[in-house]
Amino acid sequence: MPLSANNPDRKSWLHVDKNSDFPIQNIPFGVFLTRDDIITIGTRIGDTAIDLGALHQLGYFDDIPLTDDIFLQDSLNDFIADGRKTWRSVRNRIAQIFDAENTTLKNNKQHKEIVLFRLDEIEMQLPVQVGDYTDFYSSIEHATNVGTMFRDPENALMPNWLHIPVGYHGRSSSIIPSGIPIHRPQGQTLPAGSDTPVFGPSKLVDFELEMAFITTDANDLGEPIPIEEAEEYIFGLVLFNDWSARDIQKWEYVPLGPFLAKNFASSISPWIVTLDALEPFRVASPKPKKPQLPYLQYKGKKSYDINLEVAIKPKKAKETVVSNSNFKYMYWNMCQQLAHHTVNGCPVNSGDMMGSGTISGPTPDSYGSMLELTWRGEKPLKMNDGTERKFINDYDTVIMRGYCEKDGTRIGFGEVSTQLLPVYNPKKNK
Amino acid sequence: MPLSANNPDRKSWLHVDKNSDFPIQNIPFGVFLTRDDIITIGTRIGDTAIDLGALHQLGYFDDIPLTDDIFLQDSLNDFIADGRKTWRSVRNRIAQIFDAENTTLKNNKQHKEIVLFRLDEIEMQLPVQVGDYTDFYSSIEHATNVGTMFRDPENALMPNWLHIPVGYHGRSSSIIPSGIPIHRPQGQTLPAGSDTPVFGPSKLVDFELEMAFITTDANDLGEPIPIEEAEEYIFGLVLFNDWSARDIQKWEYVPLGPFLAKNFASSISPWIVTLDALEPFRVASPKPKKPQLPYLQYKGKKSYDINLEVAIKPKKAKETVVSNSNFKYMYWNMCQQLAHHTVNGCPVNSGDMMGSGTISGPTPDSYGSMLELTWRGEKPLKMNDGTERKFINDYDTVIMRGYCEKDGTRIGFGEVSTQLLPVYNPKKNK
Repeated sequence: MPLSANNPDRKSWLHVDKNSDFPIQNIPFGVFLTRDDIITIGTRIGDTAIDLGALHQLGYFDDIPLTDDIFLQDSLNDFIADGRKTWRSVRNRIAQIFDAENTTLKNNKQHKEIVLFRLDEIEMQLPVQVGDYTDFYSSIEHATNVGTMFRDPENALMPNWLHIPVGYHGRSSSIIPSGIPIHRPQGQTLPAGSDTPVFGPSKLVDFELEMAFITTDANDLGEPIPIEEAEEYIFGLVLFNDWSARDIQKWEYVPLGPFLAKNFASSISPWIVTLDALEPFRVASPKPKKPQLPYLQYKGKKSYDINLEVAIKPKKAKETVVSNSNFKYMYWNMCQQLAHHTVNGCPVNSGDMMGSGTISGPTPDSYGSMLELTWRGEKPLKMNDGTERKFINDYDTVIMRGYCEKDGTRIGFGEVSTQLLPVYNPKKNK
Repeated sequence: MPLSANNPDRKSWLHVDKNSDFPIQNIPFGVFLTRDDIITIGTRIGDTAIDLGALHQLGYFDDIPLTDDIFLQDSLNDFIADGRKTWRSVRNRIAQIFDAENTTLKNNKQHKEIVLFRLDEIEMQLPVQVGDYTDFYSSIEHATNVGTMFRDPENALMPNWLHIPVGYHGRSSSIIPSGIPIHRPQGQTLPAGSDTPVFGPSKLVDFELEMAFITTDANDLGEPIPIEEAEEYIFGLVLFNDWSARDIQKWEYVPLGPFLAKNFASSISPWIVTLDALEPFRVASPKPKKPQLPYLQYKGKKSYDINLEVAIKPKKAKETVVSNSNFKYMYWNMCQQLAHHTVNGCPVNSGDMMGSGTISGPTPDSYGSMLELTWRGEKPLKMNDGTERKFINDYDTVIMRGYCEKDGTRIGFGEVSTQLLPVYNPKKNK
């Protein structure tokens, strides 16, 4: 099936700002609550949200094989489980319906009132119910920076790093959409020079600039996914802030990995941009520095040129951009990650989420965490209001944005924005 | 509400063998497929499975506030979410219905035909849809054995171990019920003396003798569960075989923890035995060897005296029991684990599962893994058929059992039994 939705010459009859992340070539998928408190699956063109449940009920998808309630759900899991052919049919149809040349819906005032929403009339939800969430560690710059700081600059990368797309399991229950504030976590930390831990608020709360991909049902228990099939099972991508408490992590993570340092919150952008929409922005991954085992070898361009930025907004000041990075820096790509994840027969289901790991670039202004940007706090960052940041302060909002741009077409992700509140107070917060 | 279902003098009109794990004082909860291919929630007395969905439709729970379809589901998640008061009402009612003195159902042949099943007429399913699965590492003997083998006998325990109930996130998608065979996983391992990994079947497939507890909805994002409330959120326990590939683990696990070495399969026993049923078997946990932070301090007996055994059954031979351990050996108890898990505000939901970690006892015959029982393969175990085992061979079945016994009452878990098949073959297995 052709990717006609990607036609760069198409215009929509809906208004789209020149710098919008959501031209008619994007057509992302999300879940929102409408002004009538109805939950539905939708898409977005410019600043207009589109209720796909209503469009379907009105017959606009009638010749596409879809169950009646496929969009009247509180998650995209079932739609994603329908597979790539269905995603493409629906995306192509949406492009037709909103094409500037097509007057069917454009001229139907009654239908438009049912289907279209201003952004301030809806409330974005988590787009999927995440069954399992895995986080990788696939940026060589990030792994090198962390290894240099905490271990040995001469042997910054662990011996397995150039052979394995290192990953670990994360917590699904604390994945939240953009806009939900979080509390500074409490936990155990080990004061410098002491051998007895203390309990209290984390002093080193950090963001991690990541992206995450969402999968469809891929394999049964025991059955690996060959790398050449891996892409088939990837629905799309979101921006991902993998919140981290560095001081808790340092004390707890040996030998079984990070736990409470990570699972207090992980924020994602609410619109899933499909791999299909990103097709024009494919680029090659970095060249391997060591030979990779056959099950990790691939042909073609498997990465994407996605500009990423992070900004910090203090409570009463304008935001300051603190990092500019790019998804293409990832040493291990998504196909390698998925082939590795399943080579032992681990089953991957619709709605599973896999994080890239912190995406740091080669230059200090492209690092993907405060840990790296301030080099453990040694080089604080200046904010617009004159204050400094070593890590994230109470009431700061961390905002991540991402977009692709080529030949006048811009496909973006919107943002994931999360405010850090002070430690939870049972008396005040109940 | 009293725990009248625990009355030790009660007999059932259903036949119960003297050594059954499932007297009328147990009343575990599970999910099964019936002979008519209907999925339902059920319980078990002796060797009779009881369809709770049918019992409810026939009016036997009419004065308990339950939704009509609460038992006509493919998981216990919604029932568990109803909370302890509901679990107790239902368990007490089941005890009444099957009490030897109660002739209502006993004398209703038509109802009995609808409600009761022989075990060979049903197929047990996963009892819950596991949202998040966490594995702890809470046996001091196991942590000490592993530390002695792989690090330093003088400093076998990591510095954090006596302060933190160390845990990490596992994979929900590969949790399977007893009876489902698994394939030997493939993956990367590092040959001794080499710095280049090879790909192939794991040579060191191992079991880990664990138990796991299932939670109800406990807290919102950001809100810790105080240790004195923790027990309220624990529904019950299952036996848990946390399959492990030791050679894959050794190469992959630094610095983010075990991943493919664990997520190829994790097997559980299908009947959840409630904490209420285990009430008579409470015992004290081991005394702390170091002071614990206030959020981990508790009052009363928070462990349970549960005898555990592991047997290996080669393809054409009788089983050999290779380990006898006990849940009471756990250094960190479930309340400490749950308080720790949520102290940073991590949300815990109905159907989440938390593994104990390998439960090794103080003596070599009570170790909970082949790694420890054979001391890295140095002391192979003799099977009944004269063969030896360093780790688990293809076609071996690993069987774990557990029961409590006191004053003539035995409450058991049945078993979790899983056969290890050879590496998955895409031509043969498709």
